[in-house]
Amino acid sequence: MSESVYKIIELVGSSATSWEDAAKNAVETAGQTLKDLRIAEITQMDMKIENGKVAAYRAKVNLSFKYQSSKGSV
Amino acid sequence: MSESVYKIIELVGSSATSWEDAAKNAVETAGQTLKDLRIAEITQMDMKIENGKVAAYRAKVNLSFKYQSSKGSV
Amino acid sequence: MSESVYKIIELVGSSATSWEDAAKNAVETAGQTLKDLRIAEITQMDMKIENGKVAAYRAKVNLSFKYQSSKGSV
Amino acid sequence: MSESVYKIIELVGSSATSWEDAAKNAVETAGQTLKDLRIAEITQMDMKIENGKVAAYRAKVNLSFKYQSSKGSV
Amino acid sequence: MSESVYKIIELVGSSATSWEDAAKNAVETAGQTLKDLRIAEITQMDMKIENGKVAAYRAKVNLSFKYQSSKGSV
Amino acid sequence: MSESVYKIIELVGSSATSWEDAAKNAVETAGQTLKDLRIAEITQMDMKIENGKVAAYRAKVNLSFKYQSSKGSV
Amino acid sequence: MSESVYKIIELVGSSATSWEDAAKNAVETAGQTLKDLRIAEITQMDMKIENGKVAAYRAKVNLSFKYQSSKGSV
Amino acid sequence: MSESVYKIIELVGSSATSWEDAAKNAVETAGQTLKDLRIAEITQMDMKIENGKVAAYRAKVNLSFKYQSSKGSV
Amino acid sequence: MSESVYKIIELVGSSATSWEDAAKNAVETAGQTLKDLRIAEITQMDMKIENGKVAAYRAKVNLSFKYQSSKGSV
Amino acid sequence: MSESVYKIIELVGSSATSWEDAAKNAVETAGQTLKDLRIAEITQMDMKIENGKVAAYRAKVNLSFKYQSSKGSV
Amino acid sequence: MSESVYKIIELVGSSATSWEDAAKNAVETAGQTLKDLRIAEITQMDMKIENGKVAAYRAKVNLSFKYQSSKGSV
Amino acid sequence: MSESVYKIIELVGSSATSWEDAAKNAVETAGQTLKDLRIAEITQMDMKIENGKVAAYRAKVNLSFKYQSSKGSV
Repeated sequence: MSESVYKIIELVGSSATSWEDAAKNAVETAGQTLKDLRIAEITQMDMKIENGKVAAYRAKVNLSFKYQSSKGSV
Repeated sequence: MSESVYKIIELVGSSATSWEDAAKNAVETAGQTLKDLRIAEITQMDMKIENGKVAAYRAKVNLSFKYQSSKGSV
Repeated sequence: MSESVYKIIELVGSSATSWEDAAKNAVETAGQTLKDLRIAEITQMDMKIENGKVAAYRAKVNLSFKYQSSKGSV
Repeated sequence: MSESVYKIIELVGSSATSWEDAAKNAVETAGQTLKDLRIAEITQMDMKIENGKVAAYRAKVNLSFKYQSSKGSV
Repeated sequence: MSESVYKIIELVGSSATSWEDAAKNAVETAGQTLKDLRIAEITQMDMKIENGKVAAYRAKVNLSFKYQSSKGSV
Repeated sequence: MSESVYKIIELVGSSATSWEDAAKNAVETAGQTLKDLRIAEITQMDMKIENGKVAAYRAKVNLSFKYQSSKGSV
Repeated sequence: MSESVYKIIELVGSSATSWEDAAKNAVETAGQTLKDLRIAEITQMDMKIENGKVAAYRAKVNLSFKYQSSKGSV
Repeated sequence: MSESVYKIIELVGSSATSWEDAAKNAVETAGQTLKDLRIAEITQMDMKIENGKVAAYRAKVNLSFKYQSSKGSV
Repeated sequence: MSESVYKIIELVGSSATSWEDAAKNAVETAGQTLKDLRIAEITQMDMKIENGKVAAYRAKVNLSFKYQSSKGSV
Repeated sequence: MSESVYKIIELVGSSATSWEDAAKNAVETAGQTLKDLRIAEITQMDMKIENGKVAAYRAKVNLSFKYQSSKGSV
Repeated sequence: MSESVYKIIELVGSSATSWEDAAKNAVETAGQTLKDLRIAEITQMDMKIENGKVAAYRAKVNLSFKYQSSKGSV
Repeated sequence: MSESVYKIIELVGSSATSWEDAAKNAVETAGQTLKDLRIAEITQMDMKIENGKVAAYRAKVNLSFKYQSSKGSV
């Protein structure tokens, strides 16, 4: 039964070139630790501006993965 | 009068490279059949993840086109 | 059982005089083909402007009607 | 490329006993015609009341399936 | 003062029979590790479909519990 | 004219077994006093948790009924 | 202090001709009993359809008025 | 069964000093008549401005309390 | 490149007779100064009430027009 | 007619002590230039954190004032 | 690259005196363990009521901080 | 005090190639006149379609910058 429980966390990734890269950075950084990543939904996108130019594209992602109810996992 | 009625349908396109391509795939697939496409609004974006990597960018689009009230058109 | 399934489609109607007319145009155009129309909810209203004047009132409507699962009906 | 395009339609199902049945009725009625149904999201739930009692549970579902850009499929 | 701080996490539970069971699975799996669970709000419900039939009911829940600011608790 | 005016109130019902029962409890309690109940929309669902178990399913409902503008009715 | 407390109720008015009339019907019916009505916000508009024609325009309004905390006023 | 039904009403309170006071005014005015008040959610906050200065802070609150289905209680 | 940048401003128009007139007043007042008005979306509608009667229909509109990045234009 | 047109602008104010002060700062700074300010709605509140402490309370406000269609006023 | 990934968690703080204190309690409790806290957005505010009086102000905050993909950090 | 007040304006940028370019066009056009641009949030994305092909990607951005309460600055 519990094997079908997923957890969703919210991350913000950043990139100098695109929102695709920004979101990919967030996902792949999380993927170094989390197993069974499944879907990442984009919930917000913005740009950081410096000196009138776009300095970074940022994407907020909701990332779902298999939930382990072991100690320390929350 | 009735010539100014538009219909809106919701499609999900997919691409290995970007949300622009994902949305374009949805629009151009629909364009093989539907005439007078006008505007496509993005209503949701996500990523499918496999083995900790982004496998596909997906875009949900609301696509408006001229409504023909002929039989079979709904 | 299946006779109580309804489908909802989204249309945009237009009128030079009012949003009531715009919505009515969308509904009555659809009514030439669809049977058992029931409720039309307004989900968006805007105005097209030309030369600083209102050229058209437009209403987006969600229209529900009895769903026929026969071929070609989607 | 185009094989990965999905379409989403909105249906309302009804049941005397539960929202699960109401949603299932909508999905299975659609399944008689549509192939490759994938996900059905619940977007609204209500109850019809008669004589002060609940007469029906109704569920609105957004149903995604593989989009065929052939003629007549919109 | 800090004893009144709660944390909210988002889980997705699944069940072959109902959304009540799906949500209960998510809550009770979390309850094996987390103490002082308080409220679980439903934020989304959907169905997975296989071969035109409902294969699983899924519920997304926002679950609040007492927040421990000890190391490893985030 | 005034006979077509409806009022909407918001109630929260509770049940140990299901959201259907929770919503039905709210509707039928209201039905002891209010006449011409028509539609009850679900606007929120949650669960109360005690000792790591689901203690109650709760449903918030928007309930519409015929509005009587007589004294004391608001 | 308490003289500045307002209450908001939700009504649905109906009219054969326009949403302005539908909303006005709701407000003026309430005005027969309630004093110090102030603002009525439109929160939803729909149309009832019969035989493929618009039978009624309906407007849901949030109506604010001075709150009297006397018995029976809730 | 019916003892667990709650009703939610919407009030707007006002204060010259803070939104906390504005919300408290609404709650405590209601508390003179209503019993078993439980939770008050803030749904909107604004300020009334006179002569370029803030004249009042206003808070809209959704207030839940035990529902009595006796006559006159709606 | 910069010729395709549009700005959106939010106005509230008012009328004794209809929301169409209220929105038109906002648009045509703006049109005395702004060039290349394009679309006006309705984002909110309400009514001002005096002595239990509707005194004014008000419409909030989001109005888009060609953006001139010259001094003073923001 | 045009005297009843209002414009709405969005400002973000900041304060070391409270959201009331943050919003008041935004309103009173605007009041040095704009006449006939009327209502300021709070649309978002956040806190800036430095060294684990709250450094500033920030409030986003939608501020309405009488719209002058003279040159330079947009 | 990965150093620019942020995580967002949702906490609920509580205070007998104000929402500013409630939110500050949540942030500063988290700050005992988490480093590089950045922004805390308020997403909901309510009040707990006891005996017809406000017993506590509660604020729900979305708190962002630098994400460490080391083991145990999720 | 007043130096910490920011203003937010809404622009729509356009590009033949991507939403990143569309948003960048809006920001950099504004940057020719406005100083101290800070953050640009994406609030809507769509595509203009001509002859069944995507003709332009458009992004709506909310752009914040330091507010100068001098004359003409609104």
